Amino acid sequence: MEPRKQTRSGGCACGACKCLYGKRKWECKVDCIFAPYFPAEDTLKFSNLLKVFGYRNVRKMLQNLPESSREDAVTSLCFEAEARIKDPVYGCSGELYRTQKSMSELMQRLEMIGILQDIFGRRRIASERMRVRVLRHTS
Amino acid sequence: MEPRKQTRSGGCACGACKCLYGKRKWECKVDCIFAPYFPAEDTLKFSNLLKVFGYRNVRKMLQNLPESSREDAVTSLCFEAEARIKDPVYGCSGELYRTQKSMSELMQRLEMIGILQDIFGRRRIASERMRVRVLRHTS
Repeated sequence: MEPRKQTRSGGCACGACKCLYGKRKWECKVDCIFAPYFPAEDTLKFSNLLKVFGYRNVRKMLQNLPESSREDAVTSLCFEAEARIKDPVYGCSGELYRTQKSMSELMQRLEMIGILQDIFGRRRIASERMRVRVLRHTS
Repeated sequence: MEPRKQTRSGGCACGACKCLYGKRKWECKVDCIFAPYFPAEDTLKFSNLLKVFGYRNVRKMLQNLPESSREDAVTSLCFEAEARIKDPVYGCSGELYRTQKSMSELMQRLEMIGILQDIFGRRRIASERMRVRVLRHTS
């Protein structure tokens, strides 16, 4: 009897297949595209992806990527899905907007510091010049 | 004869319905949820949303929001969809990561400037003290 092929999720349904099929599916297909990235014990990760991007879109996005990039893609998609569930109006873009705003404020602070340094620098130079003049007069 | 109800897109199919049904649909339903945000001449915007989030998810996300928040949600979803199409691995998260990295570098620069100011400030104080001592000795 030919030995049964080992599935990617090690013989049980991965988190994605569990989320999609519930108890109807005991194990994934041998070539399940989700199995390497969705462990059996974590169905929430895929459930968020389903709610925001949908099963077909996620599968298509992963299929169009080389295997070496899929883990990063899953991580970023999960992050964006979670952000959209937490903030249904602005999602991940809201976080980006806030970060960009903080950065812009920081830039302004940097510019202000530059200006202040410039002002203090000039004063110091002016006082140094005065000191030299006074020394010349007294010597 | 009762006058025909004006559709939200002003009597022709909106960008979303054009994108979904092509030439099969001449005008939207009166209560089309997409019509206020997808003008007839712009089908690309909705096409990007379809590719990344899918029709049902976008519709559901908009339905779950009050009308006052839908325009912002459409803007942020379109931004994220475009970012994902441009960068299929990192999408909008990639932009967020880069911005956060730039901000962290800026923070370091700010800290460095703070430290430098501290160093120069102390030197100045030390030199002022020395000057006072010298003046006491000479007087």
